[in-house]
Amino acid sequence: MRTEVVIIGAGPAGLLLSQILNRAGVSTVVLEKHSREHVLSRIRAGVLEWGSVETLRGAGVGRRMDVEGSMHEGVSLGFANEGFRIDFTARCGRAVMVYGQTEITKDLYEAQDALGATIVHEAMDVAIEEMAGQAIVSYTTGRTRQRVTANYIAGCDGFHGVSRRSIPADRRTEFERVYPFGWLGVLCETPPAAPELIYANHPRGFALASMRGPMLSRYYLQVPAGTDPAEWSDAAFFDELRRRLPHKVAIRLVAGPSVEKSVAPLRSFVTEPMRYCRLFLAGDAAHIVPPTGAKGLNLAIADVVYLAEALIAQLRDGDRRALDAYSDRALARVWRAIRFSWWMTTMLHRFPDQTPFDQRIQEAELDAVATSEAAQTVLAENYTGLPY
Amino acid sequence: MRTEVVIIGAGPAGLLLSQILNRAGVSTVVLEKHSREHVLSRIRAGVLEWGSVETLRGAGVGRRMDVEGSMHEGVSLGFANEGFRIDFTARCGRAVMVYGQTEITKDLYEAQDALGATIVHEAMDVAIEEMAGQAIVSYTTGRTRQRVTANYIAGCDGFHGVSRRSIPADRRTEFERVYPFGWLGVLCETPPAAPELIYANHPRGFALASMRGPMLSRYYLQVPAGTDPAEWSDAAFFDELRRRLPHKVAIRLVAGPSVEKSVAPLRSFVTEPMRYCRLFLAGDAAHIVPPTGAKGLNLAIADVVYLAEALIAQLRDGDRRALDAYSDRALARVWRAIRFSWWMTTMLHRFPDQTPFDQRIQEAELDAVATSEAAQTVLAENYTGLPY
Repeated sequence: MRTEVVIIGAGPAGLLLSQILNRAGVSTVVLEKHSREHVLSRIRAGVLEWGSVETLRGAGVGRRMDVEGSMHEGVSLGFANEGFRIDFTARCGRAVMVYGQTEITKDLYEAQDALGATIVHEAMDVAIEEMAGQAIVSYTTGRTRQRVTANYIAGCDGFHGVSRRSIPADRRTEFERVYPFGWLGVLCETPPAAPELIYANHPRGFALASMRGPMLSRYYLQVPAGTDPAEWSDAAFFDELRRRLPHKVAIRLVAGPSVEKSVAPLRSFVTEPMRYCRLFLAGDAAHIVPPTGAKGLNLAIADVVYLAEALIAQLRDGDRRALDAYSDRALARVWRAIRFSWWMTTMLHRFPDQTPFDQRIQEAELDAVATSEAAQTVLAENYTGLPY
Repeated sequence: MRTEVVIIGAGPAGLLLSQILNRAGVSTVVLEKHSREHVLSRIRAGVLEWGSVETLRGAGVGRRMDVEGSMHEGVSLGFANEGFRIDFTARCGRAVMVYGQTEITKDLYEAQDALGATIVHEAMDVAIEEMAGQAIVSYTTGRTRQRVTANYIAGCDGFHGVSRRSIPADRRTEFERVYPFGWLGVLCETPPAAPELIYANHPRGFALASMRGPMLSRYYLQVPAGTDPAEWSDAAFFDELRRRLPHKVAIRLVAGPSVEKSVAPLRSFVTEPMRYCRLFLAGDAAHIVPPTGAKGLNLAIADVVYLAEALIAQLRDGDRRALDAYSDRALARVWRAIRFSWWMTTMLHRFPDQTPFDQRIQEAELDAVATSEAAQTVLAENYTGLPY
């Protein structure tokens, strides 16, 4: 097979890149190791920065989001069962959209189908054969080994994918922080306890009350790293959640049987650079943020915006400057989001090795945000998304 | 001797407290273990928050400050020999005054002399004899042991003083962080390299270009903890300073023989509460900040404002509410300043145990301040001083 851009991974980054490129007349082949059903069953992020909303609309996949998504003009931060609200619209004139990643993926699949895009599912043992003179990627379907030859490769296959690992170890630098806790998440078909997200710092640990829709709640508890979700009954989960949320939210919490329960580790990770020869990394393949700042999906979308623009400029106009600048441009934004996510995580969680001094600093940090409009503006600017 | 308030320590906190109380008709005795000449020879802080400026004026010691002090409407932050300016006036409508602590102390002594205040110098072995039913402090002058009986004791005798240590260990909690570096400071009779302060983060370590007057420069270099100032010749100091400052400042640096050279350790420290029975702590006796945020002297002045108000309310009007609230009120402000000073220190210094991830977070933090007006407003609000 011959194409202009071979995209490894059919998550939101890979599908959105394919969508934007196809609409600009650039040919693509997407290789995904899982089935379409598997991809569509994953429960992931749900908060879209304003720039992400506009990008999805511009890519022709905003129709259902604009009907079913829910605009959020603020979030609340809690401390020891009290809380305060940050008004995004008042502070920075932007809002966020709550619309599940699962829904975005579904919309992207439908749009790709309508364009007749090539998405190969269950492409096993994907391997980058060549990425210097030309780009060659091989994979297995059934018992047959296949090859795609392309001008460029987009590595959109996540943290555990093959793309990043295909860059020689001596040609990349990795930066990492692993947090000593995870998030136990529960998805539940009940009305959300509050209309906006609530991030709660509590002596017993962090809690987050969020949602994916009017009858679909998403709740999280900070748990020790390595916790088995089977240790937590639904009843125990909701009891603990009530203890950690602000009182006025806890009394409105509607418990219900969990339709999904899992533990996610928290990690900050960046690889530099995000390019090697003809391979360009985007999204989780290049960087991971803890979910506290709701930045993971949004960073992937920003990478795709930069990368699509650069690939189109090169392939349509023969202008390679944006492609050469891609890694630096993406990384500048990545590090701002890494910093913000690290700061939100540090401010809101209890750390097992936290000294009494650290604990007081954390309380003073929350107090600084609670009492300064400028500090709330900083949070709002970052949460709703820095400009591209 | 009998007085209403016995004040231990004739630094700026003790002298200012005595000055405000005397002007309100409250009698004081100040006990200082050093000679007046020694107190006046100490080189300390030089940046006054706007609230500190107004407090000094209100206490009748603002005249010379308003003539000789220099109003600063901004500071610059540097990174790797480049830099950007934060405009305090534009960001938050306030400025700071550069006027040396040595000068403030001189002005306070003169004002106290004019009021006929009692300041006992070379008061040795000060001891708090009683602080529950009544307040009794003893000390030795020459070979005579003396006693002062008072309604209240103000502990303004700094980090190494007797006041804090007189509170039983099980009735106080101490919070501390010691930083793994110090500041090598040089005072030099040359014109300052720049009209405003420059805080520079450099791969070789932090540097600060500041001043005490038009022909009196004050420069600092981050050095490893425990450095002996004698290891550094003036020539070596200025060579290193030139390497770390932004290039456009380094070329204007005028070296000269140092008139003072010393190394100060960096520490964050708080004791809680700031009251025990009839003893009230103020300034360094209760808390220490690293000098990076220029908060030490200003926090001491804020403590004195709160404490003077509370003592006057109790001693003149019999209203003890402010005295009972003093510790909580002062500590709320102290922790905000502790957090700010910790944040400035963390953002601007190189740490020996810093991981590559930490280093990138630090760069992203500086980038966030450089590119966000709201982030600059947060810095300006804190640097020029939160409202009392």
